[in-house]
Amino acid sequence: MADIPRDIEALIDLMARLPGLGPRSARRAALHLIKKRGPLMQPLAEAMAEVAASARECLNCGNICTGDLCDICADPARANGQICVVEDVADLWAMERGHAFAGRYHVLGGTLSALDDIGPETLRIPKLKDRVVSESASEVILALNATVDGQTTAHYIADELAGTGATITSLAQGVPIGGELDYLDDGTISAALKARKSF
Amino acid sequence: MADIPRDIEALIDLMARLPGLGPRSARRAALHLIKKRGPLMQPLAEAMAEVAASARECLNCGNICTGDLCDICADPARANGQICVVEDVADLWAMERGHAFAGRYHVLGGTLSALDDIGPETLRIPKLKDRVVSESASEVILALNATVDGQTTAHYIADELAGTGATITSLAQGVPIGGELDYLDDGTISAALKARKSF
Repeated sequence: MADIPRDIEALIDLMARLPGLGPRSARRAALHLIKKRGPLMQPLAEAMAEVAASARECLNCGNICTGDLCDICADPARANGQICVVEDVADLWAMERGHAFAGRYHVLGGTLSALDDIGPETLRIPKLKDRVVSESASEVILALNATVDGQTTAHYIADELAGTGATITSLAQGVPIGGELDYLDDGTISAALKARKSF
Repeated sequence: MADIPRDIEALIDLMARLPGLGPRSARRAALHLIKKRGPLMQPLAEAMAEVAASARECLNCGNICTGDLCDICADPARANGQICVVEDVADLWAMERGHAFAGRYHVLGGTLSALDDIGPETLRIPKLKDRVVSESASEVILALNATVDGQTTAHYIADELAGTGATITSLAQGVPIGGELDYLDDGTISAALKARKSF
């Protein structure tokens, strides 16, 4: 029986390694690309090659950028003494979409994990300590995920930064905007109740 | 507020146009690619550029290939007088995975649709008629989807091929292998009952 042409098979195998795509949806996406060779596949190949060649990590905060420093670290207006610590670039983008934070970031690139052999150096925690001192930060906001790993990492960082004089804060926990109590987990409700405030 | 770098934004926009990826999963996939620039993004960009440059439609059957004729049309062993008509290349691949068909294919590229202005010429139905005569096909198997559009197209093709002398058949309808009656729709059960055979 005839097979799929070898280079198309190779393309499908590579696409199946993207998060959110399995072998079946990778086949579907590849066929879609082949049908739209001109308007989609060619520009996508070029965009990928371009980003693969130019993208790198900001030497200061770990954000993705094309130069030595990301736009945020290069912008003097954002040197307001606040550093927001996030796990991942996706979290940084989410914070920026919220348009609520005007300071700088520090991207850890993960959470501490003894099992996966991820220690403080891998997460650039020593670099964070240096930055808090050199940028004389007044506040470090720990915007880590509300998971066990995220909170363990938050506690470790708070301990590490104890002597620097910066205030350590973390995101509030509570009922999300638009959230219905009936659909919330017990932990969130209990955290929101504990942190209740006068109305 | 700082935005995502422009070329990364462009990459995400293009990726969000793939079937199965929305804006959110496109962002996730793009970040994953950037993290794996060397092992994944670079080879994927190259594979895409290569396939975009080389992929084309088989002049005979409409399958995807890199030359004038696809492997199946170029293989004299598959000229057994049977032509299997499918809607899409994905359906052809599905048939080939079944390893049950040893003849050739004819890929329509869709189904007849007055609404979307898809007529017989767009679907290469005249070309199918020519092939049935020139390849003196003994049997044309209509392997179209069991949808209203698929079956309408099947009836139209059967009418068109009426004078050619080829036997027109279609895939059997019934209970899928491993299927449980309780989970099947009424139409399938009634089709399977009507087409029952001696045990």
